[in-house]
Amino acid sequence: MTTMVNDPVRNGVDTAVLFATLDAVKGAPEAAKFQFRASNEWISGTHNRSTIDGYFGVGEERNHERTFTFDADHPAVLVGRDNGPTPVEYVLHALAACLTAGVANIAAARGIHLTEVRSVVSGDIDLNGILGLDPQVRNGYQNIAVQFTIKGDAPEEKLREIVEQSRARSAVFDVITNQVPVTIDVNTA
Amino acid sequence: MTTMVNDPVRNGVDTAVLFATLDAVKGAPEAAKFQFRASNEWISGTHNRSTIDGYFGVGEERNHERTFTFDADHPAVLVGRDNGPTPVEYVLHALAACLTAGVANIAAARGIHLTEVRSVVSGDIDLNGILGLDPQVRNGYQNIAVQFTIKGDAPEEKLREIVEQSRARSAVFDVITNQVPVTIDVNTA
Repeated sequence: MTTMVNDPVRNGVDTAVLFATLDAVKGAPEAAKFQFRASNEWISGTHNRSTIDGYFGVGEERNHERTFTFDADHPAVLVGRDNGPTPVEYVLHALAACLTAGVANIAAARGIHLTEVRSVVSGDIDLNGILGLDPQVRNGYQNIAVQFTIKGDAPEEKLREIVEQSRARSAVFDVITNQVPVTIDVNTA
Repeated sequence: MTTMVNDPVRNGVDTAVLFATLDAVKGAPEAAKFQFRASNEWISGTHNRSTIDGYFGVGEERNHERTFTFDADHPAVLVGRDNGPTPVEYVLHALAACLTAGVANIAAARGIHLTEVRSVVSGDIDLNGILGLDPQVRNGYQNIAVQFTIKGDAPEEKLREIVEQSRARSAVFDVITNQVPVTIDVNTA
């Protein structure tokens, strides 16, 4: 993983810093324990807003360089006012973003210059589930399909291997395709 | 589910439309088959951008009232430039948004006026997984915790039941706590 390369910044990835980070975590595995957070506030109906700012990592509390806020809502056809994407659309964005970040890092580490990475992520969902109308239908996506277009200075086989390695190391792919335990606490005071 | 209520708009939810939608889907279950999508474009390094606009539902192709775009990146400590939240933070936002939309709808259907709904969603992740440094560590969140604050004109027990019913009918909760099959196709042409 720490092979020396001639070009330290490739695909916008500073590979020297990437390899140094890997070496640092190898020496201090605790540094890799992160906690991410989102704070959400209900606005009206299905419209609500999340704020993303603080997180814990590399041994201390940190903040993003700026605070990010995102609105979610349902479209009118789902009894909302379309003030933002639906929550399930944000999941598709998260998957695309995670796989794409991985592709850029892995290509850089392998010395491959990318010229284009695009993806379309689509998820099929039968709302008879969440509407409570059919107990045989699950609430979430029944399946998700990702279509990648990737171009760069490597043979097709190598480009495909990069996508596959990104899948194998994707946090969001793991969250979606495996199970994460979720606890919910409620305060009414 | 179609109990008549005196106040047709409660918590910003038009309950008449909500119940009419439920009745419409009962009569035509195919209307509930939706496909959501996100299109992502790599920018540089771990920075990429998703566009959310078109979707299929209620029998036809539709568009949101406006096109939504969202940037994702890694912070500097994870070898990015912090142009947006990390992909895994978007997952926490999606979960909070889905549960909160459900809370508002369910409370409205039950005739309860809400005055406040807030939540903080936190996820613990050990990046030794995605960094490939420890094969025993999973790539995604090890656990996710949701802390809700909910207030309204109902006893604590009723407010807790609303959150529980939202959990039981949440699409994103299902995606995270159960498995969704994901296929990835790659085009290099």
